[in-house]
Amino acid sequence: MVSDVITLGPNQYGKAETRVVALRRGTERHEIADLNVSIALSGDLADTHHTGDNSNVLPTDTQKNTVFAFARKHGIDQPEEFGLLLAKHFVASQPAITHARVAIEEYSWRRLGEHSFERAGDEVRTCVVHHDARETHVVSGLRELVLLNTTNSEFWGYPKDAYTTLPEASDRILATAVTANWRHSTESDWADSYWVDSYWTKSYADARSNLIAAFAETYSYSLQQTLYEMGRRVLDQQSGLCEIRLSLPNKHHFLVDLSPFGMDNPGEVFFAADRPYGLIEGSALRQGAPDAGRAWE
Amino acid sequence: MVSDVITLGPNQYGKAETRVVALRRGTERHEIADLNVSIALSGDLADTHHTGDNSNVLPTDTQKNTVFAFARKHGIDQPEEFGLLLAKHFVASQPAITHARVAIEEYSWRRLGEHSFERAGDEVRTCVVHHDARETHVVSGLRELVLLNTTNSEFWGYPKDAYTTLPEASDRILATAVTANWRHSTESDWADSYWVDSYWTKSYADARSNLIAAFAETYSYSLQQTLYEMGRRVLDQQSGLCEIRLSLPNKHHFLVDLSPFGMDNPGEVFFAADRPYGLIEGSALRQGAPDAGRAWE
Amino acid sequence: MVSDVITLGPNQYGKAETRVVALRRGTERHEIADLNVSIALSGDLADTHHTGDNSNVLPTDTQKNTVFAFARKHGIDQPEEFGLLLAKHFVASQPAITHARVAIEEYSWRRLGEHSFERAGDEVRTCVVHHDARETHVVSGLRELVLLNTTNSEFWGYPKDAYTTLPEASDRILATAVTANWRHSTESDWADSYWVDSYWTKSYADARSNLIAAFAETYSYSLQQTLYEMGRRVLDQQSGLCEIRLSLPNKHHFLVDLSPFGMDNPGEVFFAADRPYGLIEGSALRQGAPDAGRAWE
Amino acid sequence: MVSDVITLGPNQYGKAETRVVALRRGTERHEIADLNVSIALSGDLADTHHTGDNSNVLPTDTQKNTVFAFARKHGIDQPEEFGLLLAKHFVASQPAITHARVAIEEYSWRRLGEHSFERAGDEVRTCVVHHDARETHVVSGLRELVLLNTTNSEFWGYPKDAYTTLPEASDRILATAVTANWRHSTESDWADSYWVDSYWTKSYADARSNLIAAFAETYSYSLQQTLYEMGRRVLDQQSGLCEIRLSLPNKHHFLVDLSPFGMDNPGEVFFAADRPYGLIEGSALRQGAPDAGRAWE
Repeated sequence: MVSDVITLGPNQYGKAETRVVALRRGTERHEIADLNVSIALSGDLADTHHTGDNSNVLPTDTQKNTVFAFARKHGIDQPEEFGLLLAKHFVASQPAITHARVAIEEYSWRRLGEHSFERAGDEVRTCVVHHDARETHVVSGLRELVLLNTTNSEFWGYPKDAYTTLPEASDRILATAVTANWRHSTESDWADSYWVDSYWTKSYADARSNLIAAFAETYSYSLQQTLYEMGRRVLDQQSGLCEIRLSLPNKHHFLVDLSPFGMDNPGEVFFAADRPYGLIEGSALRQGAPDAGRAWE
Repeated sequence: MVSDVITLGPNQYGKAETRVVALRRGTERHEIADLNVSIALSGDLADTHHTGDNSNVLPTDTQKNTVFAFARKHGIDQPEEFGLLLAKHFVASQPAITHARVAIEEYSWRRLGEHSFERAGDEVRTCVVHHDARETHVVSGLRELVLLNTTNSEFWGYPKDAYTTLPEASDRILATAVTANWRHSTESDWADSYWVDSYWTKSYADARSNLIAAFAETYSYSLQQTLYEMGRRVLDQQSGLCEIRLSLPNKHHFLVDLSPFGMDNPGEVFFAADRPYGLIEGSALRQGAPDAGRAWE
Repeated sequence: MVSDVITLGPNQYGKAETRVVALRRGTERHEIADLNVSIALSGDLADTHHTGDNSNVLPTDTQKNTVFAFARKHGIDQPEEFGLLLAKHFVASQPAITHARVAIEEYSWRRLGEHSFERAGDEVRTCVVHHDARETHVVSGLRELVLLNTTNSEFWGYPKDAYTTLPEASDRILATAVTANWRHSTESDWADSYWVDSYWTKSYADARSNLIAAFAETYSYSLQQTLYEMGRRVLDQQSGLCEIRLSLPNKHHFLVDLSPFGMDNPGEVFFAADRPYGLIEGSALRQGAPDAGRAWE
Repeated sequence: MVSDVITLGPNQYGKAETRVVALRRGTERHEIADLNVSIALSGDLADTHHTGDNSNVLPTDTQKNTVFAFARKHGIDQPEEFGLLLAKHFVASQPAITHARVAIEEYSWRRLGEHSFERAGDEVRTCVVHHDARETHVVSGLRELVLLNTTNSEFWGYPKDAYTTLPEASDRILATAVTANWRHSTESDWADSYWVDSYWTKSYADARSNLIAAFAETYSYSLQQTLYEMGRRVLDQQSGLCEIRLSLPNKHHFLVDLSPFGMDNPGEVFFAADRPYGLIEGSALRQGAPDAGRAWE
């Protein structure tokens, strides 16, 4: 029965979007890591909600300081590693904090010289780390990977109802901006090997390649088919991953009707529309994958 | 055990961000409704993922057409109503579609005259409707409601660790951009009355007022305290609502140190920072609230 | 004759987008001013360009500090006043700096209580001040004032060529996002009176009202006609202004063809398009207006 | 003397942001051109402003159609070429139109396969063409080229005043997002050769390389020095260009003070700030450059 008693529900707090740039300048050839770090802590936080008693609330300002201090102390190599260090630190050092979520975006830079760099586009490498006493989860991903096939895409055989006007297409542009996130198997499986040999960065590069290859190589009858093939390919090729979720906007390119001007248009001139757009969301899962817990939050 | 068998996981698809503007011009005094409608359908969609067989895939283009046709057929008054009509239509008319999610943003316009309007700011009224054979959920909300108190906010008594430098504050600016979403009790409770007397719009206006009043009236020792008071106030005052979730960025306004210029700064001159920012997320729940099902997806 | 000799051309530099929030908390009823200040200085700056000799380059960091210090010293009331103070300061105090441009955006807040405020939308009040030994110019303006008429707009009688497909319209939605900037007559005309009685703020409020009234009241045969009537109205009603420039995107609302669904659409259901859009730019000038100098840069 | 007579001032209108994607699919290896075209026409347009008589107003819808039709008729190779075709067409075919401005943004795609592409980042190639009976101007450029040096940048020797707190820097990060526009010599100089051998695209690639090389190779004592060296390098190396204008935000990377945590910070950990930022604007000019006319409008 619905009552008048109101209670505090799930909650978390933290410092979002700390922009840290870490250089390694040990040799002539400098390295750069450029991150956007967002922290969210949860635990025994009822008092601050009910009375403003902050004795369990590590300030978000302190969290920001910790990001900078850890960048100096540990350096920044792989974002997943840095996220794990931070997440474990907050849970270990703050008695009231039982769970930490650390989300990181990494911006990539193309080397121009020993100490000169060019920002390498919009695309963002991402990861989300969850850590508590019971389990640790890592989800890696990317967003704003914009892909386009100029052919090998059809769309037909769909149901028609009273509101259908779309003609079937036997050759269309297929374009999307990939958001993909893949879940690494749980820590017990990987604890021994994850830290060696740039595991996370290699895994990321492989996933990215697999996504691109599957997009380019799939003769597509629907964006769903392409999506699933992209997800399947990643899991099939990368045994350390157990689940992948994809969100693919269908960035419509409409063939322009040039017949009023006495012209044909054999798949050459398109209008790139902004809105509305199709949005295809789907996932692939390895059978027997460990429970996801809070990994996807 | 983790195997090599990979399967299709949760998925949905639809047309996102159909921008429909509906006028009522029956009298001299025109009315305007300005919506952004995003539809996501799920159901028996394995074939299109596996083989590109689209016989169950109502095109997103058809979904867009349906939005426009329904705007003509039913008019647009309350976004929740319009979302319910659409969600029920897709599930009822497409045998393969078992679940529909319709998310709507409404942009508001201030009247200037009989047929002239001025866009009333950034703030957006939102709703998400979920419908399937088992249940129907409505979550209403808003975002980009930017609020600021110039005083009556403190922050102190927090734990200090090796990375703490923040001084305690006995008088600070408190500013945020409110994102709030509240869940209406399930359909069985409200089916009889929801359609009369602009239920949704009145509920929205009340929630908005309650959020603002709680923000302005709470003497705050933490943004968490303010958040919970905002949520509690809404549930306390509105018996038709059973849960509310809030996301409040702490838009920092830092007091500028003017001492190098021989000046004091008694809470008068601030630097409004962009990033990083605190992010406080929390919820309030009515005891005995019905199960949320997929309401929050 | 084009030679191989390359010289330094026009240049300026400064701190952009200093976000200063100034409170007045003298009484229970607090006041807030929320500005974004961008400074650009020019003068004898050849050396820093040619050799990196910075002896004439007041750091942009110092400019930022000056914004905060002046906010404390002088308070912030009208943005034009604050811009004039800053521009004159830099030219007066830096021997090498001969010209200052100060551009200010003001964000407005709606009062909720003695010390509580709600951000009042997207619309931005703007001003640009130019100052040098010879003259001082003030251009005030606004942007993101979004207006819409649901009727009283036609468009026909235009030339048709081989690429014309647009049907003539006898009743359409007219919607735009106004960017308007108006030039105040030169200082010699206004130096005596400008500082009294909130001259700038009253002038701003009047211009805003005049723009809105002209938009709403004009039966429009083209957005150009509406634009000119808006500009003319402002100059006609406000003798202290000598020139106004307007930039009006034609935010297309396309009537949806519902005939495939057996429905008519008597001006009721529209698709609000993003891109492309018409862009109408024009100006009105008072005869005998003083020379604009660098006012519009 | 300032009078009450108000007149129409400078004006132009057109379709902005037509998003055209043109494919060449003659062979297995497809080519893609992805443009955003904005047209602005001016001429004898007083009537539409004064009375709404549109007999001289070629609809912006027709302009959009022309973009698509010309993409089919002429193909799209170099944006400058396409802009010249459009600008000349409108002036030649519309008696009332005496001047056309065509601004084009081009988005680049990296080839993944015969008919697959990946969007190559944020960076945008731009051009603006002006054409009237008297002259034709072409300005080419780019924006969002984000560059960063991890060392070889100092900033000291600047004037100190009462508001200066910035410490001098002998080793700092220098980062910017380049907006550059360069003016091609007038048509009489280049009419014979511009159309052969991808003149515009080679010129663009050279300018881009020169900008990057100058940024990376300049040991910098001020961003002004780097800016001028970038501009000078382009003009020095490319005889067909007579003027270049650069706008370089100084994207501040502040060295984090880690001393409260007992750590040094020898140029390794930085906070990447959003606002405020320095903004350095400057130009370089070849002596004897032809008059710019309306080229920079």
